[in-house]
Amino acid sequence: MSGNSFGRLFTVTTFGESHGPALGAIIDGCPPGLGLDESDLERDVARRRSGTSHHTSQRKEADQVRILSGVFEGKTTGAPIGLVVENTDARSRDYEKLKDRFRPGHADYTYQQKYGFRDYRGGGRSSARETVMRVAAGAIARKYLAERLGVRIHGYLAELGPLTLEPVNPESAYDNPFFCPDPARVPELEAYMWKLREAGDSVGARVTVIAHGVPPGLGEPVFDRLDADLAHAMMSINAVKGVEIGAGFAVIGHTGSEHRDELTPEGFTANHAGGILGGISSGQDITVSMALKPTSSIQVPGRTIDLEGRPVEVVTTGRHDPCVGLRATPIAEAMLALVLLDHYLRHRAQNADVRSPTPVIPPGRPGW
Amino acid sequence: MSGNSFGRLFTVTTFGESHGPALGAIIDGCPPGLGLDESDLERDVARRRSGTSHHTSQRKEADQVRILSGVFEGKTTGAPIGLVVENTDARSRDYEKLKDRFRPGHADYTYQQKYGFRDYRGGGRSSARETVMRVAAGAIARKYLAERLGVRIHGYLAELGPLTLEPVNPESAYDNPFFCPDPARVPELEAYMWKLREAGDSVGARVTVIAHGVPPGLGEPVFDRLDADLAHAMMSINAVKGVEIGAGFAVIGHTGSEHRDELTPEGFTANHAGGILGGISSGQDITVSMALKPTSSIQVPGRTIDLEGRPVEVVTTGRHDPCVGLRATPIAEAMLALVLLDHYLRHRAQNADVRSPTPVIPPGRPGW
Amino acid sequence: MSGNSFGRLFTVTTFGESHGPALGAIIDGCPPGLGLDESDLERDVARRRSGTSHHTSQRKEADQVRILSGVFEGKTTGAPIGLVVENTDARSRDYEKLKDRFRPGHADYTYQQKYGFRDYRGGGRSSARETVMRVAAGAIARKYLAERLGVRIHGYLAELGPLTLEPVNPESAYDNPFFCPDPARVPELEAYMWKLREAGDSVGARVTVIAHGVPPGLGEPVFDRLDADLAHAMMSINAVKGVEIGAGFAVIGHTGSEHRDELTPEGFTANHAGGILGGISSGQDITVSMALKPTSSIQVPGRTIDLEGRPVEVVTTGRHDPCVGLRATPIAEAMLALVLLDHYLRHRAQNADVRSPTPVIPPGRPGW
Amino acid sequence: MSGNSFGRLFTVTTFGESHGPALGAIIDGCPPGLGLDESDLERDVARRRSGTSHHTSQRKEADQVRILSGVFEGKTTGAPIGLVVENTDARSRDYEKLKDRFRPGHADYTYQQKYGFRDYRGGGRSSARETVMRVAAGAIARKYLAERLGVRIHGYLAELGPLTLEPVNPESAYDNPFFCPDPARVPELEAYMWKLREAGDSVGARVTVIAHGVPPGLGEPVFDRLDADLAHAMMSINAVKGVEIGAGFAVIGHTGSEHRDELTPEGFTANHAGGILGGISSGQDITVSMALKPTSSIQVPGRTIDLEGRPVEVVTTGRHDPCVGLRATPIAEAMLALVLLDHYLRHRAQNADVRSPTPVIPPGRPGW
Repeated sequence: MSGNSFGRLFTVTTFGESHGPALGAIIDGCPPGLGLDESDLERDVARRRSGTSHHTSQRKEADQVRILSGVFEGKTTGAPIGLVVENTDARSRDYEKLKDRFRPGHADYTYQQKYGFRDYRGGGRSSARETVMRVAAGAIARKYLAERLGVRIHGYLAELGPLTLEPVNPESAYDNPFFCPDPARVPELEAYMWKLREAGDSVGARVTVIAHGVPPGLGEPVFDRLDADLAHAMMSINAVKGVEIGAGFAVIGHTGSEHRDELTPEGFTANHAGGILGGISSGQDITVSMALKPTSSIQVPGRTIDLEGRPVEVVTTGRHDPCVGLRATPIAEAMLALVLLDHYLRHRAQNADVRSPTPVIPPGRPGW
Repeated sequence: MSGNSFGRLFTVTTFGESHGPALGAIIDGCPPGLGLDESDLERDVARRRSGTSHHTSQRKEADQVRILSGVFEGKTTGAPIGLVVENTDARSRDYEKLKDRFRPGHADYTYQQKYGFRDYRGGGRSSARETVMRVAAGAIARKYLAERLGVRIHGYLAELGPLTLEPVNPESAYDNPFFCPDPARVPELEAYMWKLREAGDSVGARVTVIAHGVPPGLGEPVFDRLDADLAHAMMSINAVKGVEIGAGFAVIGHTGSEHRDELTPEGFTANHAGGILGGISSGQDITVSMALKPTSSIQVPGRTIDLEGRPVEVVTTGRHDPCVGLRATPIAEAMLALVLLDHYLRHRAQNADVRSPTPVIPPGRPGW
Repeated sequence: MSGNSFGRLFTVTTFGESHGPALGAIIDGCPPGLGLDESDLERDVARRRSGTSHHTSQRKEADQVRILSGVFEGKTTGAPIGLVVENTDARSRDYEKLKDRFRPGHADYTYQQKYGFRDYRGGGRSSARETVMRVAAGAIARKYLAERLGVRIHGYLAELGPLTLEPVNPESAYDNPFFCPDPARVPELEAYMWKLREAGDSVGARVTVIAHGVPPGLGEPVFDRLDADLAHAMMSINAVKGVEIGAGFAVIGHTGSEHRDELTPEGFTANHAGGILGGISSGQDITVSMALKPTSSIQVPGRTIDLEGRPVEVVTTGRHDPCVGLRATPIAEAMLALVLLDHYLRHRAQNADVRSPTPVIPPGRPGW
Repeated sequence: MSGNSFGRLFTVTTFGESHGPALGAIIDGCPPGLGLDESDLERDVARRRSGTSHHTSQRKEADQVRILSGVFEGKTTGAPIGLVVENTDARSRDYEKLKDRFRPGHADYTYQQKYGFRDYRGGGRSSARETVMRVAAGAIARKYLAERLGVRIHGYLAELGPLTLEPVNPESAYDNPFFCPDPARVPELEAYMWKLREAGDSVGARVTVIAHGVPPGLGEPVFDRLDADLAHAMMSINAVKGVEIGAGFAVIGHTGSEHRDELTPEGFTANHAGGILGGISSGQDITVSMALKPTSSIQVPGRTIDLEGRPVEVVTTGRHDPCVGLRATPIAEAMLALVLLDHYLRHRAQNADVRSPTPVIPPGRPGW
């Protein structure tokens, strides 16, 4: 395919542009018998939605995702699940002025060179609006993982520009528009964002996602390790420029004796591994962290070229997030869910009969 | 598949354990007409080989990779290329004592739980010896990229534990056993490694790889972005725990106005993007950096469990690298080459006829 | 995936049940720049539609296929093309009585055993209504093949039960509801079908499809030969039980000296090969023929079991085709187009640079 | 890939030319814990081998298939299984005279046009020698199916040119070099083949393969139906020009009331379906039949063109089978085993938890 599908056995294929009539997805390979209706998709899709705070794009979309197939009498049938959501607030005229020039830091120039022309309305296929379908599909995976395996996934904003946020209370991340895991810091984030908005500029962020309760054994050596597929999944999200598993880049400074997570009958003594050893889940918490660049759609004028290659100036007005990282938490959670369910199905395809004589040890320390 | 294949159109499938009779690979989809013989694989494979310095595993392997098919009268025919290399220095007895216990930080426990039992000799399939086939396959991709597209790939060791190495002279990285890009620092690295070896411990590292001359247009939105596939590729290498494209995690602190690489007719003004915008190559240098954890095969005793889950102690003797990162540079270069050639073929499948009215602008600043 | 995608590079993924709210498809990998609007899909979809004659299912569907993405200013952009068609004439009550018993010759029993329960309304996912999306997707492939490569595809009904129809005038097959290639025989077919309908029974058929103008070189040895993918494509159509390429089963009685199609500068002397040698197109006409079984939804009572395995009787009323083969021609044409375009893209991915010193010889004799 | 892999989860990738140093395969996704050694491959490979009778190619190959990985202490480990077999009797000089001309009915011309040049020694990659790896891989699948699921696969020669052979005693097919299921007819086949050989000509054949004991539920609607994948598998074998499932082309003349296999608690009343309904196995015997064309490597002179397109004459000497169908039975059995195991793994990936309230009914009548 040309890259609009994700997953080998629990496979999500998506379509849709920012300013086309609709976006949609087909989820193929969902196990039958899972209770599912549209309200199951609603919570995660709502969390991702534009306009939930002052600090994300002012676009207003109802984002009512319809289920068009694959569910009968309230349960998945095993047939492909078709999803569609209409675009109702697409103001294309905002983009007319970007028609003949390329926003620096955007996909404008690369789409032009790859395809020979581009749908310039709101970024077309390269718009972050594409991620609504990831979140809807992820909600299905998440439900299966929770109900059948007891896997719990949660994420939070870990850094916003210069501000580092400790996971004081990760559960509270769902209660504020920043996905901030430390409620006391929310006013500080508010203030920072207002200042940024006044400057017409944007900033980067770090988002962390964690899965608890993942059984050992998920992941396929050599090339399709669980961590390799997670890196793929997260780096496929708009604006992500770096991905870490467990201790991530901090491992450069570790010695082997401090890095290794020892095994005891009571559990692992630490979780530098981020829950993955040799590309296979260990039963520890799976921890993934990612860096999102600042959006390049800013009001600070910049240099660029036009369609014929002549130097011109560009200013982005329209509706844009000053920090795309603010909306990334539910998207990253969805991608984590998709990878885990896909690997669960892959694992049981090959190894459904396996019985190990070795007891499963407890996860030990949460997070890393 | 179960994860032993890489690439959609230029596809590498590998087999082989550390202590089995041989390792091998099949490369499917190689364009016909490329001049190729075994000596073309030799250089890169030799660079990766154990035993080229005191500081990598003392295993001695000739690593003569044989080409068994797909080449006729010195040129690739378009048929699959079969490669095989014998294991000649496999001393399995070293591993008998690890048979009934799991090395912490290793794949021992996760393989056991996934497959119910494991080939404990030298790590079996999870051994870094598996990467010899990546390097051999990568050498073919690299040759095509160089001869047909003028793409040049090089890499170097960027950090070794606490030591940061500037790319003063990246070309010189090929002339020393550390892949150090600053020849003046080699004695310092020697001294550091001897101290580490005396302590029986290991340390992490950072490796950076760069591709120069990549045409714009490679990469498939949405899920198979060039950066997503690169993250997948690099995270699939043993011991890698983090991957960055371009500015990587530094983007968290960037503002949009400083991060974006402006476009001018003379080229991009910077390369924070690492050569990829919207998942598609921009023509800038592709830059990827990765963190490798310290090997857990160390002589410092550690706690673990045995096959029945009882607490025991483990010490690894055998032959091991105190820093697996030292050998990772040619492997990362190979994975970069595989991703680029695969995406070049994918791109021309869909877009061979495309002519953009916009001129290709020069890459501008190298690296980032 | 779980089987709802077709094609490697020009990939069609479909969803939808007979009596759900809608059916849809995502076409990924379509080359950019192809002129496309909804009217391009209309002709083929209309030809396939129920209710165009007395002799196909009496279901009335407008079958207005909407394009939801991937087209901008009248041209494909290279992004995935989302298609959707509403189900407007789904009368589920007809099927209530089939809820607890399995129609012999149908997918009822096998879906039940595979998924544990089934959407019994009109066959659910197993309904031939699924093929509307194949035809819509095939229309896009067909347009590309015609405009860029000059490939012409046509098909016809070759046998209806005991009646064999010669391709006296294949072009005329589009002008009658039977796709009969011999206009003089249409009244005979009419009479035969009325008799069959009165008996409440059904009958089998043979459909033949041909592609003219296919360039040599399409097809991937070993497993993905062009003929292997065509066999896959045709056998994936509801009710197909046999597939032939070229002379098909007649080759059993051929000697080598009569079978082989000799090559001359003026063209091949015959076309027993059906346009494919060694799994690769030869430039001769591609000819594929298939057998479709009689539908098992008939009014003749039959024995079966119920959900608990008890013996019961079943009679199918509802709306059904007495010969599903009557509608199969546009579906088989669509599948042929999908395979050819997919292989054209695969071929140019690997071999875009190839120049053979050997001239392409003309196709020679049409058909076989 | 470029077509040298088969299967989604139990995946076989092969390489090797007729006259290269070796052929090989990688089997990825084999469940762990299956007892396996080289002798398990020997029986099927021996049955396929050249030179077992006067009537197949006179090439003498020991065909000792070595297992290079994926097996430890006599059991599969879950890691990829590498296989290799040396070519020891490759007499390339026989082929020098075919270097500059294309054998009609062969892949010579199409390889030339696809790749720009070709390995002319013994057909290179297009040689039937490629199938030795299919048989070796199939033997592994077959062992798993037999030991874990009780599936038994057998095949036989059903037609040889004008001679039709009834399956009087299918088990006896393994005891004669023709795979003839009617021992009394063997002398007649001998006589026919000697006459053919004297004429320097060749003839076509039909081969039938059957799987008994396949559980219901295997096969993935819509595009990856079990029958579609079987058609793909069989049509990918050299020389196959037609594939039938169950009653095959005879269904054209069937009425619905005679075709459908009724269900009773005691089993199906017939097996026109060939064990597949709606693309999913029903528990009836899976029956597949195929037509193989006469080899075009004959001693009767024929017209062709040379590399520059000029008309020339060609005569094939070398070592060739006057009926390639004679060796096809073990190959078709192998492909059947590969498809069934792949679908078994795919099925349990999605549906491992499914429990149907409906009892599985017995297969009923064997064959069709």
